[in-house]
Amino acid sequence: MSEHGRLDIHRARTEWLRGDGASCDVVLSSRVRLARNIAGMPFVAHASRSDRRQVLDLCRQRLLASDLSEQLMWVSLHEAQPLDRTLLAERNLISKQMVRGLLPGQEAAPDAPRGVAIALPDERLSIMVNEEDHLRIQCIRTGLDLTGAFAHIDEIDDRIERTIDYAYHPRFGYLTACPTNVGTGVRFSVMLHLPALRMTGEIEKVRHAAEDMSLAIRGWAGEGSENTGDIFQLSNQTTLGKSEQDLLVELHEQIVPRVVEYERRARRILLEKRRTTLEDKVYRALGVLRHARVISIEEAMTLLSLLRLGVVLGLLDGLAQQTVNHLMLLIQPAHLQRLRGQEMPQSARRVARAELLRTHLGEGRHAEPPDPA
Amino acid sequence: MSEHGRLDIHRARTEWLRGDGASCDVVLSSRVRLARNIAGMPFVAHASRSDRRQVLDLCRQRLLASDLSEQLMWVSLHEAQPLDRTLLAERNLISKQMVRGLLPGQEAAPDAPRGVAIALPDERLSIMVNEEDHLRIQCIRTGLDLTGAFAHIDEIDDRIERTIDYAYHPRFGYLTACPTNVGTGVRFSVMLHLPALRMTGEIEKVRHAAEDMSLAIRGWAGEGSENTGDIFQLSNQTTLGKSEQDLLVELHEQIVPRVVEYERRARRILLEKRRTTLEDKVYRALGVLRHARVISIEEAMTLLSLLRLGVVLGLLDGLAQQTVNHLMLLIQPAHLQRLRGQEMPQSARRVARAELLRTHLGEGRHAEPPDPA
Repeated sequence: MSEHGRLDIHRARTEWLRGDGASCDVVLSSRVRLARNIAGMPFVAHASRSDRRQVLDLCRQRLLASDLSEQLMWVSLHEAQPLDRTLLAERNLISKQMVRGLLPGQEAAPDAPRGVAIALPDERLSIMVNEEDHLRIQCIRTGLDLTGAFAHIDEIDDRIERTIDYAYHPRFGYLTACPTNVGTGVRFSVMLHLPALRMTGEIEKVRHAAEDMSLAIRGWAGEGSENTGDIFQLSNQTTLGKSEQDLLVELHEQIVPRVVEYERRARRILLEKRRTTLEDKVYRALGVLRHARVISIEEAMTLLSLLRLGVVLGLLDGLAQQTVNHLMLLIQPAHLQRLRGQEMPQSARRVARAELLRTHLGEGRHAEPPDPA
Repeated sequence: MSEHGRLDIHRARTEWLRGDGASCDVVLSSRVRLARNIAGMPFVAHASRSDRRQVLDLCRQRLLASDLSEQLMWVSLHEAQPLDRTLLAERNLISKQMVRGLLPGQEAAPDAPRGVAIALPDERLSIMVNEEDHLRIQCIRTGLDLTGAFAHIDEIDDRIERTIDYAYHPRFGYLTACPTNVGTGVRFSVMLHLPALRMTGEIEKVRHAAEDMSLAIRGWAGEGSENTGDIFQLSNQTTLGKSEQDLLVELHEQIVPRVVEYERRARRILLEKRRTTLEDKVYRALGVLRHARVISIEEAMTLLSLLRLGVVLGLLDGLAQQTVNHLMLLIQPAHLQRLRGQEMPQSARRVARAELLRTHLGEGRHAEPPDPA
């Protein structure tokens, strides 16, 4: 396991940016996350600094000694620069809480011992240590592939369990810090791009329907975030009382396909009844992205969302979904500052963001609009 | 004088589109208009249909027989298609009132005998017959050149007076239908582009100052029109009591230069204090104009105004002021329909307008933005 590995943020080799796989017109990625704790150690929220240090060292050593070691890069988050932690959160490799060392009901502790192991180069697997649980393992797949992600994480889980003794109760199952995770300790989630449902105002219906099924819909950057770029995370709320397999089948085969079909229907209606208006929106978005000199993250995400819709619907030539997905990541504050190699105040980021977008979407590069009829 | 001449709307050979001349960064054009009536004939508003016919025939014949004949094209407006009349008004060759055959306090009379003689190919001179006065002669010059326009119209006036007997009163001067024109019968006006004063909110100050000096400020398309594209017409309200020469000197040497300096100051301040914001506005305007699929006349004029400002301030490379001026004219409803060779409802015009703008401003044609730093 490398302690000096480097994420290649310049290229879109990250699994969930690929823009292919099943239903990738709507589903960016599928993720499975497991919460695991070490037997005989207090939960992170109740652990002393020395307990946490002990958990961290143990996990790092065991992962280092495991057969996963070769593909993993280790980052000690409490020793990392804040900007790098934010960058990892922007890539969904660690939670937002982990950036500041937050635990439920506690003050932020940026220097609390915690870390993450990341599989390179595709970032399909990451293992957070001392998040809310001792271990939070997540596997990610492009498109709708909860099954594939689950098979992967199941195998990883077994391999880790060979070296680490998990806290497990014969009746309750895997013990987790938060009661909603107790039992299978699994959380499934899919990242959905739902621009048409937002445009037709039907997104609230989806949100209510999801809540009725004990599913959560959140913005792209996780809990509490806004629906930036029309990207939503749909995930199960509880794991207790249902088998992993039931949850998986329900989400993968029923619920997500239903949302996908709903979004596609909305897109078809827009194409049939408001095609010119839709093309106008998509091309204006491209025009502004290609020409703006100053742009906020919110506006850029909104415009990139329109671009992604245009690409998926075949309204834009020569632009790949992967490029748009990658740009959605590169324009995030920490990525932008890492690309520039310096910290920047918001005003400078807005200028740098506009430059980045111009460079990547400039004329003659991508998305040459078809000649006017 | 040709009765079958044709305006070349595809090219920007029209004098006031040239975008050169003195103070052309602010002043699009200078215009002088004379109101003249024929001795012994009732004013147009009091004339019978047969009187008007007589005036029309007389003027046409005399102009045809004059030494101006060679350069003039004659259009009998009552026989022209409504679209062509609107097109002439969009080019400022006839008044808006003339399109529908309107006279103060009277109903519209589209078939009322009236016409216009237009000098080709530069349209520097036009002579309206049976507008509010029997003859309204106007000369136009690019940039700030009221002196040049006045010298030209003075000469034209003399040449016409050799063949037509004007109504003249030894004490009041030239008799005109509207009392505000009696005396010298002259109206001076300049077309000003004042985007910076609009942005800084100082345009109202200019308007009030103008009113205090008995000057009128109107939108680009004349009386009652909005300030579309930040283009304003500044003109004297009355002619009685001041000599032509006094009016001319006052406007040409004092008032207009003061407004020009005021606008330039506002531009300098924007450049110094809000350069990035200004560049952002200008380039976003270019981006939308290059990419929109549907666009209203109001939005297009607003964006072209920003483009013109960008060109004049050297923020845009490779785009000529003349191109922007020409586009401001080509996107007007009648021009757009003539270019397409068909009448179109508003929705179709918005699509055609967007296509036209893309064609003229498309990538690789003009205004290639400089490479990002």
